[in-house]
Amino acid sequence: MEHPGQYLATMRDAAPLVHNITNFVAMNVMANVLIAAGASPAMVHARAEVAEFAGIAAALTVNIGTADPEWAQGMEEAAAVMTSAGRPWVLDPVGVGATRFRQELCARLIEARPTVVRGNASEILALAGTAAKARGVDAGDSVAAAEDAARALATRTGGVVAVTGAEDFVTDGTSGLRVGNGHALMTRVTALGCSLTGVVGAFCAGQPPLEATAAALAYYGIAGERAAAQAAGPGSFQVAFLDALHAVTPAEVNASARIVPV
Amino acid sequence: MEHPGQYLATMRDAAPLVHNITNFVAMNVMANVLIAAGASPAMVHARAEVAEFAGIAAALTVNIGTADPEWAQGMEEAAAVMTSAGRPWVLDPVGVGATRFRQELCARLIEARPTVVRGNASEILALAGTAAKARGVDAGDSVAAAEDAARALATRTGGVVAVTGAEDFVTDGTSGLRVGNGHALMTRVTALGCSLTGVVGAFCAGQPPLEATAAALAYYGIAGERAAAQAAGPGSFQVAFLDALHAVTPAEVNASARIVPV
Amino acid sequence: MEHPGQYLATMRDAAPLVHNITNFVAMNVMANVLIAAGASPAMVHARAEVAEFAGIAAALTVNIGTADPEWAQGMEEAAAVMTSAGRPWVLDPVGVGATRFRQELCARLIEARPTVVRGNASEILALAGTAAKARGVDAGDSVAAAEDAARALATRTGGVVAVTGAEDFVTDGTSGLRVGNGHALMTRVTALGCSLTGVVGAFCAGQPPLEATAAALAYYGIAGERAAAQAAGPGSFQVAFLDALHAVTPAEVNASARIVPV
Repeated sequence: MEHPGQYLATMRDAAPLVHNITNFVAMNVMANVLIAAGASPAMVHARAEVAEFAGIAAALTVNIGTADPEWAQGMEEAAAVMTSAGRPWVLDPVGVGATRFRQELCARLIEARPTVVRGNASEILALAGTAAKARGVDAGDSVAAAEDAARALATRTGGVVAVTGAEDFVTDGTSGLRVGNGHALMTRVTALGCSLTGVVGAFCAGQPPLEATAAALAYYGIAGERAAAQAAGPGSFQVAFLDALHAVTPAEVNASARIVPV
Repeated sequence: MEHPGQYLATMRDAAPLVHNITNFVAMNVMANVLIAAGASPAMVHARAEVAEFAGIAAALTVNIGTADPEWAQGMEEAAAVMTSAGRPWVLDPVGVGATRFRQELCARLIEARPTVVRGNASEILALAGTAAKARGVDAGDSVAAAEDAARALATRTGGVVAVTGAEDFVTDGTSGLRVGNGHALMTRVTALGCSLTGVVGAFCAGQPPLEATAAALAYYGIAGERAAAQAAGPGSFQVAFLDALHAVTPAEVNASARIVPV
Repeated sequence: MEHPGQYLATMRDAAPLVHNITNFVAMNVMANVLIAAGASPAMVHARAEVAEFAGIAAALTVNIGTADPEWAQGMEEAAAVMTSAGRPWVLDPVGVGATRFRQELCARLIEARPTVVRGNASEILALAGTAAKARGVDAGDSVAAAEDAARALATRTGGVVAVTGAEDFVTDGTSGLRVGNGHALMTRVTALGCSLTGVVGAFCAGQPPLEATAAALAYYGIAGERAAAQAAGPGSFQVAFLDALHAVTPAEVNASARIVPV
């Protein structure tokens, strides 16, 4: 994939309003990640306003991490607004394997045809109906083991599926891309996966989702590599990561992205 | 305005219990900001206890960022407790222009006569019924464009209105003050405006609201300037900002505050 | 108490899944603290799934900080799952003295016999029915003043009670341990007490609760001492504290723990 940095440049020029229905653990970090990246986040979930707010957003993300039945209805309503308007929305099926409530909610959200689904290997396997080794919200499976499930799921939604881990895999059911950027410290800070879902949403605003998602994953991983070089542990890593998201340039993404077709 | 640092000194001596009904994105940062400044924050919103808790607080802040109809009732009940007791409460009308739910909730809260309303220019224009260029929760208007709206709103509430931005404007409908402290990095971290509302509440506990609000804005801006001098981006800025809120002294506020009457 | 570092080593080997029903202010920090310490946290509170999730957890923590009646039912259901399964759960009675709702909720949770109760002196005194000088969520009483109340409460629950402050006190009603590690900066960052409750839960998974709790308090305090040595204020302290939680080794706990029998 040529010039992945261009997707970052286009996103920053647009500074898209990204509407996030996300879990309580991630709300603050995700907003800071999106601001540092160059987008304009809003965290809105109340039934009383969620569909109306989606109407003014350039992209929507839906994360089921701390959902309840009331939130679930808002998620479906907001997703429907985006689909009708032809604007992208991204599903993050956090811990979908853990409880029946999450499984049933994700089954309904998959029917609503998300533009992108982003999850770890265990989550994508669980969504695809394959037994997964999740324990709580962490992945117990390798990305490679979830590639077939990702392709099958993408075929079902008509969209893109991204499996993230040590090496990421992105597919639209036919084509596939592997993204090799990132650092192990990214798994030692909570909500960085959730926040990545927001960045994927921002990149997909007005850009083709397969390439935009791969570019977002590369950009995010490059920021992680840069931050890890100056971090003494998970606390200083989180600080350096926000600085790096803000500092990384499109040229740096072009130079450092490790994206290869499968 | 002479000796603005005295308002910081008085606040720190009292270490007021500030009761905050605030949005999920801001809760943690706002609590840390208030502790660093020298106040004693509590984040309490449940209907089952919110009015009772207001009964023991020295000041209340109400932020509509992630409200729902249940929270809205608690906000009105807690505000009524403060008004009856003659203690200050501050309204933060986050993104009021974005949805009808927010507009109707703020209309009711304005009727409850907040001691101070603190918002960005688009929010104050929206509250005053003037068309505003908000997009989501960020301001699309300049502070100068909202001065007349601020004066009109202050006259309606009988309280103080603060419009914050590159240069802040504070008015009680008659007198006005401009506060020139601050730094652009403050807009690259989420919830710093929400947290400022908490600091305004802390300063207003037992102090005259027009001057206390201006002093709070100057103090906050000075901490921002100091933090920006050692930050490499939004992540390290947030860390340095909490350190600076804790370190800035009343003497430093007296020396560095840029407060001028209009 | 010999070799307190062994409890840290055992916890890290197991990396227990700790299920936390905690307040909104603490959710993100508590998750990061638990990851940095070496556990696997999940923040789950929705009625629709909370009991089912408890079924797969190695330990549960229940914090009443921002509870409401719906959450309260989930707390009781999840606690019952742990008690039936013979797995540990820890109660954190945040601000229990402040409102009737909190008092009634804690009275019910105490009946459910928590493995450990961890609170500040004012909270433990309030739970024990003794008049306490709490103001909001901060302690107004000394740990020493709460020792008798802690013993009485431990006798009532059949579990362990930990009173934390400048010097901590842990008791099972008969034996008692004092833990002298820690630093004053730990009180200048919000939710570090709440997060400590999570670490106590992680240490208690499969380990004897009196000793495991004392070891957790010593470990946490040692990380605080180490972080304070390089912090310039509450912002940089929070960052250094997460780094230190990750870096402190069992050998360091053995060398630096100040645990003495009473």
